[in-house]
Amino acid sequence: MKLDLNSDLGESFGAWSMGDDEAMLDIVTSANIACGFHAGDPLVMHRTMEAARDRGVSVGAHPSFLDLWGFGRRPIQGERPEDIEKMVIYQIGAAAALAQATGTRLAHVKTHGALGNMVMVDAGLARAVARAVRIVDPALILIVMPGLELEKAGLAEGLTMAREIYADRTYDDDGNLTSRRKPGAVIQDAAAATTRVLAMLEDRAITTTSGKRIPVEVDTVCVHGDNPHAVDMARSLRDALTAAGITLAPLPSFLAP
Amino acid sequence: MKLDLNSDLGESFGAWSMGDDEAMLDIVTSANIACGFHAGDPLVMHRTMEAARDRGVSVGAHPSFLDLWGFGRRPIQGERPEDIEKMVIYQIGAAAALAQATGTRLAHVKTHGALGNMVMVDAGLARAVARAVRIVDPALILIVMPGLELEKAGLAEGLTMAREIYADRTYDDDGNLTSRRKPGAVIQDAAAATTRVLAMLEDRAITTTSGKRIPVEVDTVCVHGDNPHAVDMARSLRDALTAAGITLAPLPSFLAP
Amino acid sequence: MKLDLNSDLGESFGAWSMGDDEAMLDIVTSANIACGFHAGDPLVMHRTMEAARDRGVSVGAHPSFLDLWGFGRRPIQGERPEDIEKMVIYQIGAAAALAQATGTRLAHVKTHGALGNMVMVDAGLARAVARAVRIVDPALILIVMPGLELEKAGLAEGLTMAREIYADRTYDDDGNLTSRRKPGAVIQDAAAATTRVLAMLEDRAITTTSGKRIPVEVDTVCVHGDNPHAVDMARSLRDALTAAGITLAPLPSFLAP
Amino acid sequence: MKLDLNSDLGESFGAWSMGDDEAMLDIVTSANIACGFHAGDPLVMHRTMEAARDRGVSVGAHPSFLDLWGFGRRPIQGERPEDIEKMVIYQIGAAAALAQATGTRLAHVKTHGALGNMVMVDAGLARAVARAVRIVDPALILIVMPGLELEKAGLAEGLTMAREIYADRTYDDDGNLTSRRKPGAVIQDAAAATTRVLAMLEDRAITTTSGKRIPVEVDTVCVHGDNPHAVDMARSLRDALTAAGITLAPLPSFLAP
Repeated sequence: MKLDLNSDLGESFGAWSMGDDEAMLDIVTSANIACGFHAGDPLVMHRTMEAARDRGVSVGAHPSFLDLWGFGRRPIQGERPEDIEKMVIYQIGAAAALAQATGTRLAHVKTHGALGNMVMVDAGLARAVARAVRIVDPALILIVMPGLELEKAGLAEGLTMAREIYADRTYDDDGNLTSRRKPGAVIQDAAAATTRVLAMLEDRAITTTSGKRIPVEVDTVCVHGDNPHAVDMARSLRDALTAAGITLAPLPSFLAP
Repeated sequence: MKLDLNSDLGESFGAWSMGDDEAMLDIVTSANIACGFHAGDPLVMHRTMEAARDRGVSVGAHPSFLDLWGFGRRPIQGERPEDIEKMVIYQIGAAAALAQATGTRLAHVKTHGALGNMVMVDAGLARAVARAVRIVDPALILIVMPGLELEKAGLAEGLTMAREIYADRTYDDDGNLTSRRKPGAVIQDAAAATTRVLAMLEDRAITTTSGKRIPVEVDTVCVHGDNPHAVDMARSLRDALTAAGITLAPLPSFLAP
Repeated sequence: MKLDLNSDLGESFGAWSMGDDEAMLDIVTSANIACGFHAGDPLVMHRTMEAARDRGVSVGAHPSFLDLWGFGRRPIQGERPEDIEKMVIYQIGAAAALAQATGTRLAHVKTHGALGNMVMVDAGLARAVARAVRIVDPALILIVMPGLELEKAGLAEGLTMAREIYADRTYDDDGNLTSRRKPGAVIQDAAAATTRVLAMLEDRAITTTSGKRIPVEVDTVCVHGDNPHAVDMARSLRDALTAAGITLAPLPSFLAP
Repeated sequence: MKLDLNSDLGESFGAWSMGDDEAMLDIVTSANIACGFHAGDPLVMHRTMEAARDRGVSVGAHPSFLDLWGFGRRPIQGERPEDIEKMVIYQIGAAAALAQATGTRLAHVKTHGALGNMVMVDAGLARAVARAVRIVDPALILIVMPGLELEKAGLAEGLTMAREIYADRTYDDDGNLTSRRKPGAVIQDAAAATTRVLAMLEDRAITTTSGKRIPVEVDTVCVHGDNPHAVDMARSLRDALTAAGITLAPLPSFLAP
């Protein structure tokens, strides 16, 4: 079995650093590269893509709402899908050109933060993102949470999709992430997170907090690297997956468009 | 004889409008589209490119320093060429994706404002811009002022180039524009500007303020549209050129890569 | 009877212009000055305050969410009141210093756009804004819509308040503005708007779309100037109010702290 | 003898952190607070001012060019003094309001980065900054490098000034800092920096790289905290100064306006 590990990287900006990209690039197989709207700038993007390329890590665009101060985490209401479509096209295009400049190419797209949350439940925004991906390059792989709006939109646009689970989050019965405000929504313990991921892979299903089972073929697992603890969790997950005989590999190596 | 007329367009941003793009798109054959660093946003870019496409006007990227408040007009010192290269790659990539979304494609690149001035005299920055263009798409036409650093850099990178003159500006003996601070540097009278352009085309040379003659094959003439007077000047220049038997046409129609 | 006319001004930014501030400053008695978060910059703020001062027009701060691209109109969810408090303090402080530099002083505060809408119905945000005003200068007059959350918060903080009605908008039974999406929510006809305002002043009440009567002592009327038609409406309202014997005067001239 | 130690703090922004402000606030007596133009935001400013207040550290405004991406370090040419004056007024006003919100008050102003370098040698910009300070609050102390343009402008505006030396930089014969590009311009060794500072204090003069002696009464020493090594250097300087019998104290405690 092949599996991808993805993480949000290249989230520094100008004089400010964020996370330990070098450490994470030694762990993951895919890097979601911030595109300048919530974080990242052309220099950071290029530097991160070079570091990914050197390690055989695949790169993707990580588009966001235009919200640098809020790091793309603020839910912005009332954005029109046709506007978001152009916003996402712009960001993918910019990332694609920088990927080309590093001698590699963009493999996937994963939406960031508040936009990422909203496209899972808002059909109009989901369709906008899927259209944007198809317009720029129909061979791009769209990372989606299984069963939610973005997957439906990706299907409608004929995109290759990577189904994603989160290592450190619990799920509600809609198949969406439990709100961070609820106790226990975020799993802090590396061993517990690893156990959960292995169980989901073996069971080919997500188990929700109520015990409901949602079948899913997992292509990629999202890991975070925004603090030393998170890097440790990602590393221990990688080791456990490898020990379980799972081959970690970038999305394009097993998800043919 | 074929000639292109180019103008800086798509310089609105968010809620703010700039210039009369619709009027100018009825006059010019090439539109330099702001890429979000000094003006423009993904919505403005897309809207302007659609309007250009509908009129058969060719579109190009108009990259700039990252300086929204200063409209890209502030000379920023100390930028490293390798950083400017990534900045320009990002902007061209974003514009290329949006052009593709409107069913057209980017034909050229013209640098904006302070960056545009600096690449004419700074060999390092000129080389950075030329490399950026070649990396994203070697078929892109680079608009240059004849005889200056950007043209040399474009030659070194093997780019197709469009030699440009300005309708409403005078020249010094280096072939560069006379400083705006000098009296008479900007030509306000439409008839005088038109006479100058026709003379340069016929003579195949720029005549500087000291009377020096610099031979040049002109491919494109830059016109401005930032006020009603400027739009009138552009229109009268277009009429005079047409009356003189010159065919106005977008760059790609006569500058084969 | 004394009455203030207020309008949002100083909403240009860098190279971009917005509205006809000069025309509006000849009509209104109070100017709400954008503070750089949704529009305005230190130069625009200073210039607009000078023009106001020269005409005896009173100036106030017009704080907003940090959202330049969205012009402060995008509803941003999840902002914490304690954070908004600091955002508003910053903006009032900046505006107060520039007012002082023009030899005048800030008289009032009016919230802008999406923040302005949210503080009318969200008690936490309303309290944050009222606290911010009291902290910077308890003598500042807070412009509020009568009966809504911001008025309650202003009372709790002991602020002097100016009750405001809108010339060109209808009201729902909560005393809030009818959604712009509903037909008839915005009054386009200058005569109709003027008649409505005179009726509300005479009746000392707002009449809602359902016919409900909400008693209110009106201190200020909001007029817009974002297009030539709006300027005309503002001028005709001013003429009608004057003809009806109402004295138009800045807020501090009749609202003693 | 009394002496102030100052450092640039509050240079985080949104989701990004910069430096170890807590550690530095245990060392210095004055904090230069970024005002949102090169770094800092209202939340960061407020938080940093609270932490300063809790330790008896005095706070000042640290205004900059408007250049978030470049961290205010990019020399921007052609800014008009009258524009910079408004930019600085805005930033001081915003910082003053936030200082007031934390129950303290702004004690001083120190210019940042490229603007800070330029006001030492450009009389027009220097005068703009001094005027801005005097307009907002003539009791604010202006931190200057002795003998350069900003000191002259401060004298002309009648401001109280604090003469500053740098712990980790060498000087040229103009009394300005040696360019960072020259070898040895930055002193990396804590002991060497400490020795230099003690020598300058005892000698009441700066000694330049050529050996020239420039007499100066030192009021404050600038220390950096942008990396763990810098924090260590600042701490060892503090210890050495205290051991030498110098009383470290905030500027307002010994520089009466």
